[in-house]
Amino acid sequence: MASVHVNLGSRSYDVLCKYGMLEKAAELILEADLKGKAAIITDSNVGPLYNEALASKLKAAGYHSSTHTVPAGEASKSMSNVELLCREMTQEGHDRSSFVIALGGGVVGDLAGFVASVFYRGIPFVQIPTTIVSLVDSSVGGKTGVNIAEGKNLVGAFHQPQLVLADPATLSSLPGREYREGYAEAIKHAAIRDAEMFTELEGLSPADQAPPAELIARNIAIKARVVEEDEQETSGTRALLNFGHTIGHGIEAAVPYGTLLHGEAISLGIRAALMLSEEYSSLSPAESTRVLELLKGFELPLILPDEIKTSVVLEKMKRDKKFSGGTINFVLLRSLGDAFVSKEITWQSIERTIEALRS
Amino acid sequence: MASVHVNLGSRSYDVLCKYGMLEKAAELILEADLKGKAAIITDSNVGPLYNEALASKLKAAGYHSSTHTVPAGEASKSMSNVELLCREMTQEGHDRSSFVIALGGGVVGDLAGFVASVFYRGIPFVQIPTTIVSLVDSSVGGKTGVNIAEGKNLVGAFHQPQLVLADPATLSSLPGREYREGYAEAIKHAAIRDAEMFTELEGLSPADQAPPAELIARNIAIKARVVEEDEQETSGTRALLNFGHTIGHGIEAAVPYGTLLHGEAISLGIRAALMLSEEYSSLSPAESTRVLELLKGFELPLILPDEIKTSVVLEKMKRDKKFSGGTINFVLLRSLGDAFVSKEITWQSIERTIEALRS
Repeated sequence: MASVHVNLGSRSYDVLCKYGMLEKAAELILEADLKGKAAIITDSNVGPLYNEALASKLKAAGYHSSTHTVPAGEASKSMSNVELLCREMTQEGHDRSSFVIALGGGVVGDLAGFVASVFYRGIPFVQIPTTIVSLVDSSVGGKTGVNIAEGKNLVGAFHQPQLVLADPATLSSLPGREYREGYAEAIKHAAIRDAEMFTELEGLSPADQAPPAELIARNIAIKARVVEEDEQETSGTRALLNFGHTIGHGIEAAVPYGTLLHGEAISLGIRAALMLSEEYSSLSPAESTRVLELLKGFELPLILPDEIKTSVVLEKMKRDKKFSGGTINFVLLRSLGDAFVSKEITWQSIERTIEALRS
Repeated sequence: MASVHVNLGSRSYDVLCKYGMLEKAAELILEADLKGKAAIITDSNVGPLYNEALASKLKAAGYHSSTHTVPAGEASKSMSNVELLCREMTQEGHDRSSFVIALGGGVVGDLAGFVASVFYRGIPFVQIPTTIVSLVDSSVGGKTGVNIAEGKNLVGAFHQPQLVLADPATLSSLPGREYREGYAEAIKHAAIRDAEMFTELEGLSPADQAPPAELIARNIAIKARVVEEDEQETSGTRALLNFGHTIGHGIEAAVPYGTLLHGEAISLGIRAALMLSEEYSSLSPAESTRVLELLKGFELPLILPDEIKTSVVLEKMKRDKKFSGGTINFVLLRSLGDAFVSKEITWQSIERTIEALRS
């Protein structure tokens, strides 16, 4: 079994990665010393696939559990769902001795993690990610939260999971588009920290939906090392994970939730960041092209549609919580695998670059 | 100036206590190294009294601030208000570099502290308490949260303030009943940790509404020492602060919010806890009587009205978040100033004691 230890002092935990591991989830939860009742939080897509088996395994391992299902989709990351889930959990007899299991993709992980962070002022939680983006990225690092009308993830908490069970077998049931979009984050990890992993990603066949567990674990390890260096995004290291996300989030927010999948918007944001890296730093055109080809291989978009107005993207970017006190911290690449935060990027150059994405 | 340092490692802070200190709030906030814009969260009772002066002093000290007012009363501690306040703050241009000022009593402190803990995954906050209960108790210790239909404070976070500015001059504007109810917590502090302070409390004239700053600070210090020993209520020490609250919260929850003020319900809970302390531990009837006389001096109730049914109180107690995994942890006194957590108290003895409160 590929395993990554996330070393955060008293908040340390293991990420276990193996095909078929979901079968053993209850035993592994028991081994991780989680006590009390389990509240499984899942969504209407993932719940029907795995919840029944998980609940019965938990029962066999001696756990009482209840299941709480939200509609699939980004709109479920809401404060009203946080309240609803806390109320349901109370009604099911959960208290400060319970723990949460997040069974699903990034939306479920962010929502369930936030519920765990505020229910009775914080109870433990386990992540069982079922999408590429949650496997390689969002299930590790403790960022939880929900959206408000003014922007994504503006309300939330840093709350580390106590265990992450990453079973790549869950990927086979994903629709192709949702499987592929997650690779935007894996490609980002390679771009900022691990040029070698590029070769591995280039060798994947997107249609298989069965990446090697070792590749998943290697991605998780990149995220884990960054989080260890800068758990609460204060020193700047963690900001490197925003590569492609500054303009990408602006694009994602400029269209109704769900029009562009997260990874699709990030693909456009990565292309913009590559352009700026060539202009303001030393990234070579050949390296840029290699990243673009990889994105294209996963059928991720590189051209910004005309109906998404530059002015709206800029407006949304200004609301982004990455802008602290008005300064733009923009992540650029010196070369493949070597990222840094630049303060040189102006709104003018961002505007010009968004326009350049149209062709 | 009386000052209490709360020593919690990287989350340490000062509680400054002085008559007239509100005048100097902006300077003290500047000295505490708080940067960025200030979001003042207050309520419809307190805001009109102090907000204008505070905002203008902040402006003079170089801070940009916005004010966000909720209706006075317990009903404002809601998830919908948390969302509304986060949205308003975003609209006013606040971001992760901002900080919150909680200007008001316990409701405002709990609500504003929780908003600060989740806005952009956590920003600093300052407590400016304006009631006895928030001065001596709730503004220190970092417990923040809101209510859901199933119970009080079931959703929240541990989030320590960066500074507490306690100005007892604000007490003079309180209605008499609200001034007096806060003493239930001060009497509790004396009962569990500081028998000497009893004499001081006995010497106060409730009608004055002007307790010595040193007495306030002495109360704060008791709370601070308990919080230092057990910040997140894991070792059991912090549970001592629940003296009078186990049955007290049940009584408070058994009537519509606001029928009984918090301190009034706690007064009844303290009487019940005294009865059980005589029965199950070594508290003498003379010591009990001394506590009861002090509560009576502040016009706090000692007789449970017939319309509050024992069965409803018990039902509400079972929902209380102090019951972890079904065990009753009940705080008793061995003697005045010496509290401990007993696991000997049964539901039967609690039921009998609630009945005994009726005469």
